[in-house]
Amino acid sequence: MRLAELSAKTGAPVATLKYYLREGLLHPGRALSRTSADYDEGHVERVRLVRALSEVGGLPLARIRRVLDVITDPGTDRLHVLEAAQRTLARGAGADTDDGPQGAQDRDALPVDAGRERVLAWIQRHGWLVDPQDPFVDELARAWEACDHAALGLDEERMDRYADHVEGIAAVDVDSVPADPVRAVRHVVLGTVLLDPVLVALRRLAQQHVSRRAGGGTERVSS
Amino acid sequence: MRLAELSAKTGAPVATLKYYLREGLLHPGRALSRTSADYDEGHVERVRLVRALSEVGGLPLARIRRVLDVITDPGTDRLHVLEAAQRTLARGAGADTDDGPQGAQDRDALPVDAGRERVLAWIQRHGWLVDPQDPFVDELARAWEACDHAALGLDEERMDRYADHVEGIAAVDVDSVPADPVRAVRHVVLGTVLLDPVLVALRRLAQQHVSRRAGGGTERVSS
Repeated sequence: MRLAELSAKTGAPVATLKYYLREGLLHPGRALSRTSADYDEGHVERVRLVRALSEVGGLPLARIRRVLDVITDPGTDRLHVLEAAQRTLARGAGADTDDGPQGAQDRDALPVDAGRERVLAWIQRHGWLVDPQDPFVDELARAWEACDHAALGLDEERMDRYADHVEGIAAVDVDSVPADPVRAVRHVVLGTVLLDPVLVALRRLAQQHVSRRAGGGTERVSS
Repeated sequence: MRLAELSAKTGAPVATLKYYLREGLLHPGRALSRTSADYDEGHVERVRLVRALSEVGGLPLARIRRVLDVITDPGTDRLHVLEAAQRTLARGAGADTDDGPQGAQDRDALPVDAGRERVLAWIQRHGWLVDPQDPFVDELARAWEACDHAALGLDEERMDRYADHVEGIAAVDVDSVPADPVRAVRHVVLGTVLLDPVLVALRRLAQQHVSRRAGGGTERVSS
C-alpha cells in the first residue's frame, strides 16, 4: 500500500509517518520509484505500536527507539534480554519532560541514599524477594520521598497495604506471560509500558466507585 | 534566605530556581535590593513540590501550573474543586511528550467510540458506580485499545482480575483523604499524581517477587 493508505489504515497523519520514517522508528517501504514506496502489514503494526507507546505509554521518542530495539532484536539470551528490557524501562513513562534548562542534568539530584535504605528495609520486612540492585528500588525510593515532601502521610503501614494489592496485580501480570521466549520478551516490554495507563485509569474509576459505595455520593467522588 | 541558600536547601540548581521564578511556578521573594531577594520556608516547600511533580510525577510545566493553581486557590466549593482537580489530571502523567510534529494535534486521533462502549459495558457488568462522563472512562478505553493493538491479550476476564486488586488500592486511597476540605483537595491532587509512580515501582518489584517465589529464579525475574 502507499503512504496515504498506511495513513488511513492507522489513523496517523502522513506528516507523522514521514517523521517516523525520518527518525528510523518505521522501517522504509519497498521503493517503487524515486518518490514512492510500498508498505505492508508489518508497517501497519509498527505504526500502531509506536503510537500506542507514544500516546498511551507517554514515552519520549528516544525511549520508544530503545523499546523497539529490544523487542525487534531479542537476541539469543532470554535472561539478558529481559533484564535489558527492565533497564530500558526504568525511569519510567513520562519522566523525560520539560522541567527547565537544568532538567536533564539535575534529574538525578534528589537524594536517594537514605530513601534507598528505607525501601530496602521495608522490602525485607515485607518479605519480598527482590534484587537490591534493581533500578526500581531507586525509583520507589524517589517516589516515596516525593510523597514525603508533599506531606501525603505515606507511612510503612500504608505502603504494606498498597503492596499487598499490587502483589495481586503482579500475579495477574506474571500469569499472562507467554511461554515462548521471543513472545515473552515482547509481552513483558509492552505489557510493562502499556498496562500502566490501564491501571492508572482503573485506579481513578475505582476511587470514584469506592467513594460512592461508601455513601459519600458525588461529594467524595474524586478520591 | 538568599537564592543560593534556597538552592542548597532544596537541591535545585540556582539556574532552575531562576527558571521557576521566570515561569511563575515560584512566587517572588521579598525584594532586598534591585538584585537580591529574601526567600522563606514557603519557597522551600513550593520548590520541593514543583520538583516532585516534575521529576517523579513526570508532569510537564503547563500541567504543573494547573495543579498549583488548583491547590493554591481551592475556592469555596469542595465538590467543584475536586472535580476540577480530576479534570486537570485527566490525560495523565507523561502524556505530553514529543511524538513528532503532529503530536499535539493528533493526540486525540485514536478512535475511542467503540472502545468507550466496551468500557462502559464492562464497568456495568463489573458493578462499579462510575459517572459515564468521567474523563477516565475515555482514558481507560484508549489504554485498553493500545493493549489490543499490541496484542497483549487483555480480555475482560483479565480486566476483572486487575480491577478487583485496584479496588483494594482505591480503598486505601479513600481511607487516607483528610476530613478538612482544603487539605482534602491538596491531598487528592498530589496523591493522584505522586502515588502513581509509587504504584508503578511497586508493580515492577512485585512482578520480580512473584516470579521468584514461583520458583522461576532470575530466569523469570522481569515480569
